Amino acid sequence: MGDLHVWAPEGVGEITEGDDLAAVLLAAIDDLRDGDVLVVTSKAVSKAEGRVRPGTRDDWLAGETTRLVARRGPTRIVRNRLGLTMAAAGIDNSNVEAGSVVLLPEDPDRSARELREAVAGRRDVNVGVVVTDTAGRAWRDGQTDIAIGAAGLVVAESFAGRVDAHGNELAVTAPAVADELASAAELAQGKLGGRPCAVVRGRADLVLPTGEHGTGAAALIRPDGADLFGWGAREAVIRAVAGAAADRGPFGSPVSAEELADALHDAGLAARVTHADGVTADGSRADAVRIVAFAHGWEVDGSDTDLRLRPVSP
Amino acid sequence: MGDLHVWAPEGVGEITEGDDLAAVLLAAIDDLRDGDVLVVTSKAVSKAEGRVRPGTRDDWLAGETTRLVARRGPTRIVRNRLGLTMAAAGIDNSNVEAGSVVLLPEDPDRSARELREAVAGRRDVNVGVVVTDTAGRAWRDGQTDIAIGAAGLVVAESFAGRVDAHGNELAVTAPAVADELASAAELAQGKLGGRPCAVVRGRADLVLPTGEHGTGAAALIRPDGADLFGWGAREAVIRAVAGAAADRGPFGSPVSAEELADALHDAGLAARVTHADGVTADGSRADAVRIVAFAHGWEVDGSDTDLRLRPVSP
Repeated sequence: MGDLHVWAPEGVGEITEGDDLAAVLLAAIDDLRDGDVLVVTSKAVSKAEGRVRPGTRDDWLAGETTRLVARRGPTRIVRNRLGLTMAAAGIDNSNVEAGSVVLLPEDPDRSARELREAVAGRRDVNVGVVVTDTAGRAWRDGQTDIAIGAAGLVVAESFAGRVDAHGNELAVTAPAVADELASAAELAQGKLGGRPCAVVRGRADLVLPTGEHGTGAAALIRPDGADLFGWGAREAVIRAVAGAAADRGPFGSPVSAEELADALHDAGLAARVTHADGVTADGSRADAVRIVAFAHGWEVDGSDTDLRLRPVSP
Repeated sequence: MGDLHVWAPEGVGEITEGDDLAAVLLAAIDDLRDGDVLVVTSKAVSKAEGRVRPGTRDDWLAGETTRLVARRGPTRIVRNRLGLTMAAAGIDNSNVEAGSVVLLPEDPDRSARELREAVAGRRDVNVGVVVTDTAGRAWRDGQTDIAIGAAGLVVAESFAGRVDAHGNELAVTAPAVADELASAAELAQGKLGGRPCAVVRGRADLVLPTGEHGTGAAALIRPDGADLFGWGAREAVIRAVAGAAADRGPFGSPVSAEELADALHDAGLAARVTHADGVTADGSRADAVRIVAFAHGWEVDGSDTDLRLRPVSP
């Protein structure tokens, strides 16, 4: 820590199916040492692995998608088969022959492990490996590079149990260092092609011993259903009401009576918890409460002025 | 591009209200040149600006929040007065005296401009400045540092009109380089304190001429209402139904009849566009359609099997 050097060599040739990726990249990297992190774009990995396909992004979208997260106009934000939430599932149509697209690697963590081992075989150095892709963010314009594959690397630091100089616990903070390495590499690589990899020197503390590959970058993905933004705001509404109409709840995880009461209260719908497993809602908005409640897995009994909620029976 | 050096000097003393931030930071930085980017944590800026407050994060949350975005258990994701969507509005209780919190700077872009000018005054160098904070992400675990203030810096590159070596347009890609600089700096700074700033050398192409401060980091924030994830999935549902019940729509932006029809179709609710400004929904789920439609600013006429939608009159 304290001092970081990031460089992205020029002169890496165009990568095509069947290329020995380690050999191609190492040909451009003179100086590689134990504790360095080798960062490579998923595009380079995909090309070597034969993931170029003829056609458009739309042609390949369904096959790479597990579900639609949000749409607006022509934009489709989806959760892809790797669990990544991305526009167009991460299918790329830049820096590839016109009329073709590049699919993400089948298993970027595996690709990273293979590259790490191949590098160790050729140079006898122990490096961490990051496979990157470019992703948008929910609340910010522009994109940053993130880690979609990793090997031999701590992908997120943990400060659980650590305290700062003032005695405050740092338990909550978990810097996603693999993503930060990807972003640092992007600054050196740029987007105009010709620099598919970068080396980051100065965080050897993040590189695991030879033979230990670590969690991989998949560990940075929030499990489906565990995040608060698994659906676009509009999609969530439509799904909830459709779910209520079709007698099914829209959310995988259960909502407690207390949480539901709090949420209804926040929304200006009078509600109070009357007993451990039920909610009573006052007032005349029973239909709204009924639908919200059902969408959250609660059934409704009673009248407009004495509405009782109980968990939907399985 | 190609070669980046990032270093975070040790030996910067504890910063307190009224400190001359430029003087304190420069005392630890021997070598600073035109085209370097000086990255500093918002915590250091806030301390110099007297933004330390007694109390807990909860005590100061309401004042820093413009609206609740999502909640689950004790977690509150809010949009804060700067437009940033963050847990606890970005109020920090680490690396500060126990029993105190640090509020974000009043105007981090202004702080960045002032620091840039103060640095130029003391050293006669033209640097870019980034003010950082640590933020979570919607779909990924862990946090990365992002730019909440910037001066004299291109915060997002634009490739509009540029083509890659294969002739493909790169129009959509806009690397958020200010955020990537923040992340690269975090890797050199670490989270255990004592390194409130870093220098990034190697992207002088992003630094603007003296006197030009650029857009600032505020330009990286999606305007409220323009993002697809302005509400947590649950909060969106509750808000929509509450809005329908209270005779008001939940979304600021209008939805076209076509978008509504598409969305209803995706949700498994039969719907078809019948004319330019209306939608007809077939089938027996009229109540669900009615509520979804109303929540999106459309009023409903007709029967279950011939439902007509028209914009809500103002």
